[in-house]
Amino acid sequence: MKGGLIALLTDFGTRDPYVPAMKGAIYSEFPGAVIADLTHDVPRHDTASAAYHLLSVAPHFPGGTVFVCVVDPGVGSDRRILILKRKRQIFVAPDNGILNYLIDDSRNMKCYTLKYPSDKPGISRTFHGRDLFAPAAARLAVGTPIPSIARAVPMLRPARLFVEIPARMKRPVTGKILHIDHFGNVITNVKLPAGRPPENVRVTLRRKTILLWADTYGFAPAGKPFILVGSTGLLEISLRNADAAVRIGARPGDRVTVSRAPGR
Amino acid sequence: MKGGLIALLTDFGTRDPYVPAMKGAIYSEFPGAVIADLTHDVPRHDTASAAYHLLSVAPHFPGGTVFVCVVDPGVGSDRRILILKRKRQIFVAPDNGILNYLIDDSRNMKCYTLKYPSDKPGISRTFHGRDLFAPAAARLAVGTPIPSIARAVPMLRPARLFVEIPARMKRPVTGKILHIDHFGNVITNVKLPAGRPPENVRVTLRRKTILLWADTYGFAPAGKPFILVGSTGLLEISLRNADAAVRIGARPGDRVTVSRAPGR
Amino acid sequence: MKGGLIALLTDFGTRDPYVPAMKGAIYSEFPGAVIADLTHDVPRHDTASAAYHLLSVAPHFPGGTVFVCVVDPGVGSDRRILILKRKRQIFVAPDNGILNYLIDDSRNMKCYTLKYPSDKPGISRTFHGRDLFAPAAARLAVGTPIPSIARAVPMLRPARLFVEIPARMKRPVTGKILHIDHFGNVITNVKLPAGRPPENVRVTLRRKTILLWADTYGFAPAGKPFILVGSTGLLEISLRNADAAVRIGARPGDRVTVSRAPGR
Repeated sequence: MKGGLIALLTDFGTRDPYVPAMKGAIYSEFPGAVIADLTHDVPRHDTASAAYHLLSVAPHFPGGTVFVCVVDPGVGSDRRILILKRKRQIFVAPDNGILNYLIDDSRNMKCYTLKYPSDKPGISRTFHGRDLFAPAAARLAVGTPIPSIARAVPMLRPARLFVEIPARMKRPVTGKILHIDHFGNVITNVKLPAGRPPENVRVTLRRKTILLWADTYGFAPAGKPFILVGSTGLLEISLRNADAAVRIGARPGDRVTVSRAPGR
Repeated sequence: MKGGLIALLTDFGTRDPYVPAMKGAIYSEFPGAVIADLTHDVPRHDTASAAYHLLSVAPHFPGGTVFVCVVDPGVGSDRRILILKRKRQIFVAPDNGILNYLIDDSRNMKCYTLKYPSDKPGISRTFHGRDLFAPAAARLAVGTPIPSIARAVPMLRPARLFVEIPARMKRPVTGKILHIDHFGNVITNVKLPAGRPPENVRVTLRRKTILLWADTYGFAPAGKPFILVGSTGLLEISLRNADAAVRIGARPGDRVTVSRAPGR
Repeated sequence: MKGGLIALLTDFGTRDPYVPAMKGAIYSEFPGAVIADLTHDVPRHDTASAAYHLLSVAPHFPGGTVFVCVVDPGVGSDRRILILKRKRQIFVAPDNGILNYLIDDSRNMKCYTLKYPSDKPGISRTFHGRDLFAPAAARLAVGTPIPSIARAVPMLRPARLFVEIPARMKRPVTGKILHIDHFGNVITNVKLPAGRPPENVRVTLRRKTILLWADTYGFAPAGKPFILVGSTGLLEISLRNADAAVRIGARPGDRVTVSRAPGR
C-alpha cells in the first residue's frame, strides 16, 4: 500500500452521525482507505488542543498519512480550508489557527488552500467535514497531487504551542496546562530540550510548588505529586496511581511557572 | 474492492466485550472485511434513534455497504431478523420497527428474513449480534447472494420518521425532537422539501417560540436560539457556541410545532 | 490475508493521544495492519477486567490475531513484557497477571518475554505501549516468528478468573462481580459447565437473594431481578429493560454466593 491512511481528529464526539458520515464520504471516494480515529473528543472549538493531538501523534504515523482535523467553529463562513504538506505527511484543517502550531521548519513545508469544487451540488453549509474535508482527504490519500485540488498560498505564520526551557534557565519560564489526560496527568506546554536530562527545576501551579521528580509513573512515592517528562517531551505533573489534576485542582489553560529549584 | 464494507450500529456502548466480539465474528468469517463504527451509543432500545442514524449516514456510504443494526430488546425471542436491500445497500436488523423507517420507495426495495443456520451449535440466546447478525453480515459483505441465507418476505409497512412541511403550509405541523447532538443542537424530525429555501416559519417547543433563522452555526447573534436546516435536511434549534438543548430544556421525544410566522 | 489483525485493549480512554500514537506506530511498522479496538475503558490498572475482556472476545477472533493489552501500572520498571501463544492466537501484555488468567491448557501454549530492541533510541520510559508493544505486535502480525523478537520462558502460573459450579453442588460456591455492563447487567465470575442447563440455584449478593431464572433478557417479568447464563457462559443478574446493578447496588468486586435453591 502506498498511502491510503487517513487519520481523523474532530470535536464531534461519538454519539452523532457526523463522524460516520465523514467516513462514508471517504469510503465513497476511496473504497480502499484505511481510517484511523485520533480522537473525536477535542474540547469544542479548542484549536490548541487539536494541535496538541496532532503534534503528539504525527511523528508516529507513517509518511503519506493524511490528517483531517475538523474543529471548525467557522463552518459555512468564508474561512479557508488549508492543506499543509509537512514531513511527508498532509494535514487538512480549517484556517483557524490549528495548523499554525505545526509550523516548525517552514522551509520544508508547503501550504495550500482547498479549491471548492464548483461542480458539486448539495454542499451543506453546516457540515464541511462531510462535504469538503472528507472527499478532499480521500483524493489526497489515493495519491492525487495537492495542486490539482488546491492553490498554493504563502506559508502560515508560525504559532507556538510549546514553551522551551533554555539550556541555561536564568529566569522563570511561564507556560500553561495544555491537557489533562484520562489518568489525571497534568500535561503542560513546557518542553525540555531533546536529549537533555531535566535540570533541577520546580513547577508552580495553583499556588502549589512541586519539587519532586520521577522517571516514570510507578516509581514515585505514593501520595506526592511529582514532575515527569512525558512521552512527547512535555513536563507533566503526575501522582502515583491517582488523579493529579483532581488533587491539585488543575484545569486546562491554567498558568504554570517553571523555575530553578533554590539551593540546588 | 467490490463490497467488503460493514457498518455497525448498536446500543451496546464501548466499554463491554459485545462490539469487539461482533467484530471478531465478522473477521473470522471474512478476514478482508472493512468495519466502520457508526455509533454504539444509540439510547437503549431506541429504534427511532437507530433509524435516524441510518438515514443520516446511509446516503454517504458507497453502494454495497452492509449496515448491521443491533438495537434488539427482543433478542432470544422469535422476532425475525430482517435483511433489507435498498438503493444498492443492505441493512440487517431485528424486526422491531427500525427498518420500517427506511421504506421510502418500496418498489425498488426487497425484504428478506434471515434463515437461522441449522448446522451451527452454540448460538447464544442472549447475543444474536455476535452469533447471527455478524456472521450474516460478513457473508453478505463477501458477496453471498441474499437468497442463499434468507427468505424473501413481503415488504415492510413503511413508518414515518420525518414529518414533511408542505409547499403551502396552511396549518401548523407537529413533529418531535429526534436527537440532541454533542454540541447541544436540537434536531427535530421536521423536514423541508429538498431544494426549497425555508419559508418564514417559527418553531415552538417547551413553550418557547423561536423565530430567528440562520444559514450556519457561526453567523447567528450570540445568546439567541435560532432555527437552521441541518446537514440532513432536518430543522434544528441551535445556539451560537453554546448548548441549545440545555438552554431550552429540550429532550428527545419533546413535541415541536412548526407554524407560519405571523405578519410576514 | 494471512494474519494482519491486531486487537487493542487498554485502560487509556479515548480522549488522549495514547491509543492513536500506538496505532501510528503499528501502521509505521506494518502499513497493511488491520486494527480492531476491543475497549480502551478497562478500569485503570484492573488486570482482572482486562483478562475478562480477552477471554470474552478471543474465541470469536480468527487464528493469527495478535492481541495487545496495555494495562500497565509498572511501565518503565523492569517488569517483563510477555508474549503468549495460545490456540493459534498471540497475546502481548505486561507481566502483571493479565495473561496468567488465560492459562487454561498450558501444554498447548508457549510463553516468551520480549527482547528489548537494543538498536532503537528514544524509547520512552513512560509509554511502552507506543514504543515497545505496538512495534512488537506489528512485527508479529506481519508474520515474524516469535523467537526472533522474544526469548522462551517457563509457562506462567495459571490464575483463575472464573469459579466453576461443580456438576453436583454440595456446598455454596463463592464468586465475585467481574463487570457491570452498559445495560446494568451484573456479570459474575461464576461459570456453569458447558452444555449443562442451569440447575436450580439461587444467587445472593448485597444481602439480596435472587431465585428467578430467565433464558434471555426479554422474557422475565418486569421489575424483578433474574439470573441468566450470559453469552460467555457466566452467571449474570439482570433486570428486564432496566439497570440491575443500580437496583441492587452492585459493584465490581462484590462477593457473590451461589447455592442450591432450598426445597427444589
